[in-house]
Amino acid sequence: MDTSTDLAARVGQALKARKLLLSTAESCTGGGVAQAITEIAGSSEWFDCGFVTYSNVSKNELLDISEALIAQHGAVSEEIAAAMAEGAIANSSSDVAVSTTGIAGPGGAVPGKPVGTVCFGWKVGDQTFTERLVFAGDRQAVREQAVVHSLQGLLRMLT
Amino acid sequence: MDTSTDLAARVGQALKARKLLLSTAESCTGGGVAQAITEIAGSSEWFDCGFVTYSNVSKNELLDISEALIAQHGAVSEEIAAAMAEGAIANSSSDVAVSTTGIAGPGGAVPGKPVGTVCFGWKVGDQTFTERLVFAGDRQAVREQAVVHSLQGLLRMLT
Repeated sequence: MDTSTDLAARVGQALKARKLLLSTAESCTGGGVAQAITEIAGSSEWFDCGFVTYSNVSKNELLDISEALIAQHGAVSEEIAAAMAEGAIANSSSDVAVSTTGIAGPGGAVPGKPVGTVCFGWKVGDQTFTERLVFAGDRQAVREQAVVHSLQGLLRMLT
Repeated sequence: MDTSTDLAARVGQALKARKLLLSTAESCTGGGVAQAITEIAGSSEWFDCGFVTYSNVSKNELLDISEALIAQHGAVSEEIAAAMAEGAIANSSSDVAVSTTGIAGPGGAVPGKPVGTVCFGWKVGDQTFTERLVFAGDRQAVREQAVVHSLQGLLRMLT
């Protein structure tokens, strides 16, 4: 498996080649995606900013996601992942965004959404993609796999 | 030296005891402070959100820091660190904020600000504190030390 640092470097090359700026909108990964990206020296050329919207209130305040949408779908849903990616672009100077919202555990499982459930959003141009996966392992393992998957998805969309 | 996870757990206990919500505003640590905080299970009880304002434009768009203030002091300055912590509280539902802005390297040094220079801000209630340090080591070492120092400062202010 590629490490998050390898993936972040390749994401950076793809963004630079297309002269695009990236932003992140993270819930369950809590800044881990932005942290992996900014491990890369020179990432300021292609990384604009990140939103770590851990609370539902902050999803509304920072990314304009309505309480009604969260109540309708739950914070851990592909609908909210899409809205987070869209909100990141709308509230920054970025062109491309990636988002994560999930249940890293050990608590937080709800019916139909076990621990390890993570929803992802990616937005490039007018296109928004989402995905829902369930990762195995403890809190740290779920978060690390989610960071890697978010970057793999970005790379796939950009290349 | 305490690990960032140990420190984050103790910061969380202190915030819970005082019923305060935390936010982060990071530049050079790029999400590493928020990532360390959200390693702690249950951190949603005391962590509201994080701003990773890597570009100068995002410092303005997300935290309302004027271009003039950045031009006057430079993005890596105690003045901007203070403004980042204040902006994080003003733009969220948090009560306490910590900020980092620095030069992780290998590039980016300017006269009077060598690689490893990091400015920190902490705001609790009406009080804002700042500090400027120069850390030794490579990009990863500078960033890791900055994450630990930001949490140590928070803990000192809260206990």
